[in-house]
Amino acid sequence: MKVNVIVTLKEGVLDPQGKAIQQTLNGMSFSEVKEVRQGKYFDIEVNIEDEKKAKAKVEEMCKKLLANLVIEDYKIL
Amino acid sequence: MKVNVIVTLKEGVLDPQGKAIQQTLNGMSFSEVKEVRQGKYFDIEVNIEDEKKAKAKVEEMCKKLLANLVIEDYKIL
Repeated sequence: MKVNVIVTLKEGVLDPQGKAIQQTLNGMSFSEVKEVRQGKYFDIEVNIEDEKKAKAKVEEMCKKLLANLVIEDYKIL
Repeated sequence: MKVNVIVTLKEGVLDPQGKAIQQTLNGMSFSEVKEVRQGKYFDIEVNIEDEKKAKAKVEEMCKKLLANLVIEDYKIL
């Protein structure tokens, strides 16, 4: 089955990439944009059919590789 | 309000970054990983309180800047 994960910077961690996107949008007449934060999205296909087991396995991957827990949070969808 | 967007590569478009993550996970004893596709996630705060209007505005941003519609799809959450 497929498991989706979003990895985002923790609140308070500077996000220069998001800031650049926000400024570009503001300059493109999207003046209503107040803040943009960018994160990563992973679509992971695993050979496990049990949803609970698959998600537990993906959580382990987040902790070991996909997210840097010092500055990032992950959310399994 | 905040609007979240996921931008992913269209099916069939090669994703070398996702492939590298998949191979790394396989090498880390996560042999159950069959495929990984990576995408981008945006958390956009706009000065619009009406949900429908905010999402319509963000859709416009996706078309004009955030996604390359030739190779990418976007999904507004």
